[in-house]
Amino acid sequence: MKPVENKKPTREIKVVRRVLAVNERMAEQNRRRFAEKGVFVINVMSSPGSGKTTTLQKTLGRLMPEVRAAVIVGDVSTTHDADRLAVTGAPVVQVNTDAFGGDCHLAAHVIEKAADDIDLDAIELLIVENVGNLVCPAEFDIGEDARVVVLSVTEGEDKPVKYPTMFRTCDAAILNKIDLLPHLDYDKDQAIAYIRQVNPAMPIFEISARTGAGMDAWIEWLKAKVSSKLNARR
Amino acid sequence: MKPVENKKPTREIKVVRRVLAVNERMAEQNRRRFAEKGVFVINVMSSPGSGKTTTLQKTLGRLMPEVRAAVIVGDVSTTHDADRLAVTGAPVVQVNTDAFGGDCHLAAHVIEKAADDIDLDAIELLIVENVGNLVCPAEFDIGEDARVVVLSVTEGEDKPVKYPTMFRTCDAAILNKIDLLPHLDYDKDQAIAYIRQVNPAMPIFEISARTGAGMDAWIEWLKAKVSSKLNARR
Repeated sequence: MKPVENKKPTREIKVVRRVLAVNERMAEQNRRRFAEKGVFVINVMSSPGSGKTTTLQKTLGRLMPEVRAAVIVGDVSTTHDADRLAVTGAPVVQVNTDAFGGDCHLAAHVIEKAADDIDLDAIELLIVENVGNLVCPAEFDIGEDARVVVLSVTEGEDKPVKYPTMFRTCDAAILNKIDLLPHLDYDKDQAIAYIRQVNPAMPIFEISARTGAGMDAWIEWLKAKVSSKLNARR
Repeated sequence: MKPVENKKPTREIKVVRRVLAVNERMAEQNRRRFAEKGVFVINVMSSPGSGKTTTLQKTLGRLMPEVRAAVIVGDVSTTHDADRLAVTGAPVVQVNTDAFGGDCHLAAHVIEKAADDIDLDAIELLIVENVGNLVCPAEFDIGEDARVVVLSVTEGEDKPVKYPTMFRTCDAAILNKIDLLPHLDYDKDQAIAYIRQVNPAMPIFEISARTGAGMDAWIEWLKAKVSSKLNARR
């Protein structure tokens, strides 16, 4: 078993750097725009199938109408997630990245455009449900205030160390589907130790979006973040 | 809920096309090299945590020593999967893409280099375990003979329509973790209908890598592919 070094043509590296630099500037523009409106923006990322949409459905059900929220949801294709989130009553904007051959992440310029369809004066919280992918979305700042990664207990323990950029750059982790623990060979303590290895201070919320278990702590954390953003503007 | 068109700068699109065109040429070189040796190459892709590694562990246990196999395993970081696969006795080459800022897929030039560390005269089957990601790996031909997507029943039913390029370009699908079905709100018929919607003719193997259920049909399919590649060379 030998490790192989992944050598890329230099030109390709330069292009990737330029794309990221352009994205960084647009993300800062987004961040100023959201700050002026006192809107807290959260970027929710995960593997496909970790339960992001169900978690957000339940989260919106708990927050609204006390917290006024809107959602931008990114998928390569389909409006399934937007359809599921629209039933909460929150305004939902669907971004389909297959307009560009199936982009694997949401970039800052896409968020800028999607936000044009949301009345930012009418909300305090903008939730962005990113494309299901543990790699690329972590590289793209979209102008968010906080990043949350959702990890389900069916995905194995070692994802934090296999996808370290994602877990290092997130401000909180949600460990979802804990209702399935009795049926899995899953070492939860090991999973948490792996998260801590990459990001020692990150709060970890153990929940089941399906049953509602463990949601209180997550909701309180999110409400506190929204309040402090609003207070910063006053 | 309004769909947003994802407009990208034209220059970026051209760069992406050039990268893919270069990759295509290197993939064809790989394909010729593997064909000369009579080695059947399978590219195994999925979300993070779908059970690729466990599936391949069990697959190698069933195939070897009758079929002589080697593995190239791609991860952003860690050698966990290679460590798990090495116990099967198959030669394993680990590729860590974080040498290049955490690449989200295996490209043809990476496979070319990794294959240098494998004695192609000593094997009939080369299994490539790609980076866990349902988007980007689908765009990159690595010179494989067949593509297999692993989807676990914990990921929800609609992944085939949300990630259509992956399911459209694959030659077989493995529906894994069927031992968990009694504990999930999962509509297996709907999931299979979604796969059929994207790829009507694709064989679908329903398995539990953990319990071994359903593995026979998958092993027979793979053995037949390896034999026909060997016979093509004779």
